[in-house]
Amino acid sequence: MRAQDMTEAPDSFLPVTENATGAGPLLLACEDASNAFLPQWDDLGLNPDQARAHIAGNQGALGLAHGLAERLHATLTHAPVSGLIYDLNRGPDMAGAMRSRSEVHDIPGNAALTRAQPLARTHAVYLPWAYGLRSLICSRIASGRRSVVISIHSFTPVHHGKPRAVEFGLIHDADPTLALDIVAAATGSNLNVALNQPYSAADGVTHTLRLQATPYGLRNAMLEVRNDLITTPEAVESMADRLAPILTHAIAAHHAEVA
Amino acid sequence: MRAQDMTEAPDSFLPVTENATGAGPLLLACEDASNAFLPQWDDLGLNPDQARAHIAGNQGALGLAHGLAERLHATLTHAPVSGLIYDLNRGPDMAGAMRSRSEVHDIPGNAALTRAQPLARTHAVYLPWAYGLRSLICSRIASGRRSVVISIHSFTPVHHGKPRAVEFGLIHDADPTLALDIVAAATGSNLNVALNQPYSAADGVTHTLRLQATPYGLRNAMLEVRNDLITTPEAVESMADRLAPILTHAIAAHHAEVA
Repeated sequence: MRAQDMTEAPDSFLPVTENATGAGPLLLACEDASNAFLPQWDDLGLNPDQARAHIAGNQGALGLAHGLAERLHATLTHAPVSGLIYDLNRGPDMAGAMRSRSEVHDIPGNAALTRAQPLARTHAVYLPWAYGLRSLICSRIASGRRSVVISIHSFTPVHHGKPRAVEFGLIHDADPTLALDIVAAATGSNLNVALNQPYSAADGVTHTLRLQATPYGLRNAMLEVRNDLITTPEAVESMADRLAPILTHAIAAHHAEVA
Repeated sequence: MRAQDMTEAPDSFLPVTENATGAGPLLLACEDASNAFLPQWDDLGLNPDQARAHIAGNQGALGLAHGLAERLHATLTHAPVSGLIYDLNRGPDMAGAMRSRSEVHDIPGNAALTRAQPLARTHAVYLPWAYGLRSLICSRIASGRRSVVISIHSFTPVHHGKPRAVEFGLIHDADPTLALDIVAAATGSNLNVALNQPYSAADGVTHTLRLQATPYGLRNAMLEVRNDLITTPEAVESMADRLAPILTHAIAAHHAEVA
């Protein structure tokens, strides 16, 4: 079924997939990877400072995803448009899918959505993403390749005025196995590591894992890195160097178990 | 990503959707609705008696789904090809997706699948179904319509030589609310009603609900009717007459709660 009213966003935006032939067991998803606002969404009414802050936050997560994909021979799929247009780690039933306020500023273009707009954005952005990631996952399963799924995010060092000590958070959906394995592998890494920090599944942040990994019994985790640690290309590469052996170790242990 | 080898099944089979404009809150899914084997799957090697038995079983479930869709103003989506080619209530990770043996007979066309065949069938049948049902569900959510999801199946009165007393089974995934409401509404109906009979989620039979309803917080249930009660068009209509007020009552109670 096509939406009846697609006037706001007539196009469909497919997820961007890189390293599709990566031979490793890891499939990386980066929902907060794009700065594209696009004319049909009129930049959501953000001013240049707000847009720059949004862009800076995303660059770290996508850069880290690239760095890990390269080091772990992983396939990476990431968002084609800004998460402020549609947050791909949220279902259309969740208020955060098209949020009208981030932590520190209003998002004018989301403040008074018409009845047709959520439907148009769901069809243009959410459904193609959900299909694309499912197609990747099910192709691997049907080809007899075992996979683990990790979604990559970054978070702010200060939230509503409170500093956050955690630097590397692992969040899980129903199955904690991989998140626990990564926490164990990170012990002694000099990173401040924590399970289910700065958020947990109870905050509704595991939609991608719940939709794409849990129903197929795939081990999965959500990885959160504090964004002040990945502000420059050099810092991103350094963090990828630190995290790659941790993830490799945790995934290899699991991969041997299920292979 | 497209499958590399689509030679077995070059086409994509979209789910069949009826009564898409149905104004009721119910969305019905019927995975075992089709008798289409299609030349590219060479009838799976079944003999005419086996094919007839398969066809008879499906006719009851689809007929009942039609009857309920009409009575409850529900949208119905159903499978476009035989569940023996791909059982749409199974993920590609599950052995039952392309089963090589049913209860009583072997399925030659599934006995020795090549490495390419599961991938081709997943792309041709499973992924379009999963996308189509998700599109229906998310369109309703994004349009502000609350929905409940029910999948409809039938089961044999005798299984491996043992008769089954249950006539109307309600099975739930993580959230038992709707299944319990239907069981309660069916009390006094003269049907032998049971919760999580003749199967339960532990048997891996709630894939559709787990994939499509649970992640969006939609109330859901799987409905199983003993197929000796729905062998003729008249019996199907009679069963639809009996079940319609039960489902209407259970859904209305819930719909008021969430509206």
